[in-house]
Amino acid sequence: MGKKVEVCFSPALYNLYDTNNSIVVVVDILRATSVICTMFMNGVKEVIPVRDIDEAKRLKNEGYIVVAERDGKKLDFADFGNSPFFFTEKIVKNKLLVYSTTNGTNAITIGQNSKQIIIGSFLNFQAVVDYLIKQNENVLLLCAGWKDKFNIEDTIYCGAIAEKLLKNNSFDSICDSVQISIELWKLAENDILGFIEKAAQYNRLKKMGYDNVIPYCHTFNKTNIIPVFKNGKLLKL
Amino acid sequence: MGKKVEVCFSPALYNLYDTNNSIVVVVDILRATSVICTMFMNGVKEVIPVRDIDEAKRLKNEGYIVVAERDGKKLDFADFGNSPFFFTEKIVKNKLLVYSTTNGTNAITIGQNSKQIIIGSFLNFQAVVDYLIKQNENVLLLCAGWKDKFNIEDTIYCGAIAEKLLKNNSFDSICDSVQISIELWKLAENDILGFIEKAAQYNRLKKMGYDNVIPYCHTFNKTNIIPVFKNGKLLKL
Repeated sequence: MGKKVEVCFSPALYNLYDTNNSIVVVVDILRATSVICTMFMNGVKEVIPVRDIDEAKRLKNEGYIVVAERDGKKLDFADFGNSPFFFTEKIVKNKLLVYSTTNGTNAITIGQNSKQIIIGSFLNFQAVVDYLIKQNENVLLLCAGWKDKFNIEDTIYCGAIAEKLLKNNSFDSICDSVQISIELWKLAENDILGFIEKAAQYNRLKKMGYDNVIPYCHTFNKTNIIPVFKNGKLLKL
Repeated sequence: MGKKVEVCFSPALYNLYDTNNSIVVVVDILRATSVICTMFMNGVKEVIPVRDIDEAKRLKNEGYIVVAERDGKKLDFADFGNSPFFFTEKIVKNKLLVYSTTNGTNAITIGQNSKQIIIGSFLNFQAVVDYLIKQNENVLLLCAGWKDKFNIEDTIYCGAIAEKLLKNNSFDSICDSVQISIELWKLAENDILGFIEKAAQYNRLKKMGYDNVIPYCHTFNKTNIIPVFKNGKLLKL
């Protein structure tokens, strides 16, 4: 038996997995983990994920730059909403940001009993694959989902990662969610954006006029940086 | 908008769904809901699902016929394990059985706030479809899963049901788990038993020598009976 790969479809199921000896890859393709990878690609120094809106507000009053969104919409007090296009080098280089979103920040912060928590997106896809293969540890791919429900976009990403890991002989899986993520990835891979049109989040973003981020969030390998969550902060690995 | 169809992949996610106005279809293809449909097909009068082993033991001591299994294996004190082949007309006709399994009995008993709880399997597939279309109520397809984790066999069944409901114009869905269940059903439908070989439960049953039940549990329309859970008991609808 090699190291174990598992996929968890919801933060609400996270406690079913024994992650003490696992690297947890947090996945929120539309949009948190794509946004975070973009921030680091453009030179942010640290990102503090905050689950609670009041805490984000308090940090805003202390002078932090705050990115905060609920149900897709920027919160009034925040400096920025959740589009990756806001976070250019000019805006984020060497800065410290506070970040609070509907699903992603929850998923990032629940895995603290694990060996390590890293941030995965299509933007740093190959870097994540290479890193996981090199570490040779058990891997849990954790979908942020939508309000604890299953979502399509995170699942196909997990399928794409799991397929690469299982092709490497040092990984195994007996997890139905891995099998199914890979099946779905195979259905999606030749026309990812077409497949994503089935996703509820595609339709939510489209209704709000934010669907311009969708092709970007499904672009492979724009950066080799892997953000890692440590002592309450996201840092460059 | 028509009535809503949703799929819940785990009993642990059940509380995310608003089911006050929904019919809940409990699904545990390998094996609880297939076994229950078989019991009713062969004339059982009532089945009492019991989550707790001690409670099952107590009922055994009171003289009930007890079917009880954990992790696939019959419990010592029980009269029967969980193979559908045990429950012939000779054994169950007009009888009252107590029933306790790893996943299925939990899924059956958590939905008590819903409008109605019915038991679905391939064995009563068309009867369930016809019934749901006739009721014209919201539908939640609830997978029993494996110890609260996602499983393949329950999911493809949900896809098969959801596909039929959505073809009927009185139902709608905006649920990613419905979309994905249907995609998986389409992958599986031409060779269900081949597809099921990917499932962890297939391998668990095979290891224990119980895989002879798998083709039976994926047989369509052996009965028109729909068991319903009411006041703590399963009865013929």
